[in-house]
Amino acid sequence: MLEKMKRRRTIRKYTDEPVPEKLLRELLTIAARASNTGNMQLYSVVQTRDAAAKAKLAPAHFNQPMVTQAPVVLTFCADANRFVKWAEQRRAEAGFGNLQTFMAAVIDSMLFAQNFCTAAEAEGLGICYLGTTTYNADQIIKALELPQLVVPVTTITVGYPDGLPEQPERLPLDAILHTETYQDYTADDINRLYADKEALEANIRFVEENKKETLAQVFTDVRYTKANNEHFSAVLLKVLQDQGFLADT
Amino acid sequence: MLEKMKRRRTIRKYTDEPVPEKLLRELLTIAARASNTGNMQLYSVVQTRDAAAKAKLAPAHFNQPMVTQAPVVLTFCADANRFVKWAEQRRAEAGFGNLQTFMAAVIDSMLFAQNFCTAAEAEGLGICYLGTTTYNADQIIKALELPQLVVPVTTITVGYPDGLPEQPERLPLDAILHTETYQDYTADDINRLYADKEALEANIRFVEENKKETLAQVFTDVRYTKANNEHFSAVLLKVLQDQGFLADT
Repeated sequence: MLEKMKRRRTIRKYTDEPVPEKLLRELLTIAARASNTGNMQLYSVVQTRDAAAKAKLAPAHFNQPMVTQAPVVLTFCADANRFVKWAEQRRAEAGFGNLQTFMAAVIDSMLFAQNFCTAAEAEGLGICYLGTTTYNADQIIKALELPQLVVPVTTITVGYPDGLPEQPERLPLDAILHTETYQDYTADDINRLYADKEALEANIRFVEENKKETLAQVFTDVRYTKANNEHFSAVLLKVLQDQGFLADT
Repeated sequence: MLEKMKRRRTIRKYTDEPVPEKLLRELLTIAARASNTGNMQLYSVVQTRDAAAKAKLAPAHFNQPMVTQAPVVLTFCADANRFVKWAEQRRAEAGFGNLQTFMAAVIDSMLFAQNFCTAAEAEGLGICYLGTTTYNADQIIKALELPQLVVPVTTITVGYPDGLPEQPERLPLDAILHTETYQDYTADDINRLYADKEALEANIRFVEENKKETLAQVFTDVRYTKANNEHFSAVLLKVLQDQGFLADT
């Protein structure tokens, strides 16, 4: 099993083979065994199978082809709505419209999502996370009809792999592991820890294709620009307000 | 492997058997195979093994005994610092001091953390998540000397299980799975979906011990009160500001 986890990679192309509802439910049931805050399970997942519904979601994900091509699209949501409704029916007054509850719900939903992915991959499925979910959370809320206290956090496309893409590199463990206290990075550390990544053929090509001087510039000038980050931060902040997660903060 | 995931439970008591550094590094290396935003790996993990260092962390976790008793304490952090330092050295200007980057880093670090837990449990280790991390993030930042653009998101205590506690209940899958659109809960839905949870012997006892009328009240009046949620939300908001994650928002 560790071998499987070690060899895993994101799958962006899927065969036509459907993902049986029974299997999906079994995998999600196992995924819900992940730890969560106080066993409140502050999350929900919306599955999209209908072609028209996928087409409706696609623009929120900048029309990445996985959304319409994958047999199943799963949108994982931070969800305090169900808990608060339960509390209201049980003479309990929940003060859950705040940042801490949102963070707990985000953490809960991500542990649930990642557990689902591991279980799905163990069964031969392939998955792809879509980071666009927090960018266009407002559009996704409309498409999936999410009520107050529900915010989409990530989306996963799921299906049987069509082909086996190359496994991307990772930084050496020493780049991410600190012992006892955080050892901040010197210029030499940075050079050493990023050397292999920068020397990779694929990354050198990536810099050329984007007509940049360095790999880092592809990220800051093309993929994750300051302007985009700030624009979508404002959108997300408004979403948190509109969905009621900053009401009591 | 799915069987192992199905049977998993949180472990709060550990034997004296140490967790070898080699094994820990192997498990973290596997964990880093989790998906992450643009392969930027916006996370770090700090391991605490030294008894004095654990004692320093303990108050931030309200002195829960796992912190000092576990052989290893892992603090998983949203980390844009390493990436921004790399960018600065490569003539790239990162605009990463904002909410979207923080969210991406939170998601990255939680997928990494959960992957670690699954790998660790497959090797016979037991883990416990500490939700107190976002409550007292300011204290943890001081204890672990976290620089700007680094915020602790969750903490995991790790060791070999001393005993096998009961597996806690989960809501039925229909409580968390929606199809095509979110189906908001009617009063009948809530009664049906929470019935088994409320009927559990352990939960009935839990209500009595806390001298409350309903299980929901234990959560809203004792465990996750409005006053605490609001207090710790203000602390967290200040942490995000102080660490530079709201600078450009």
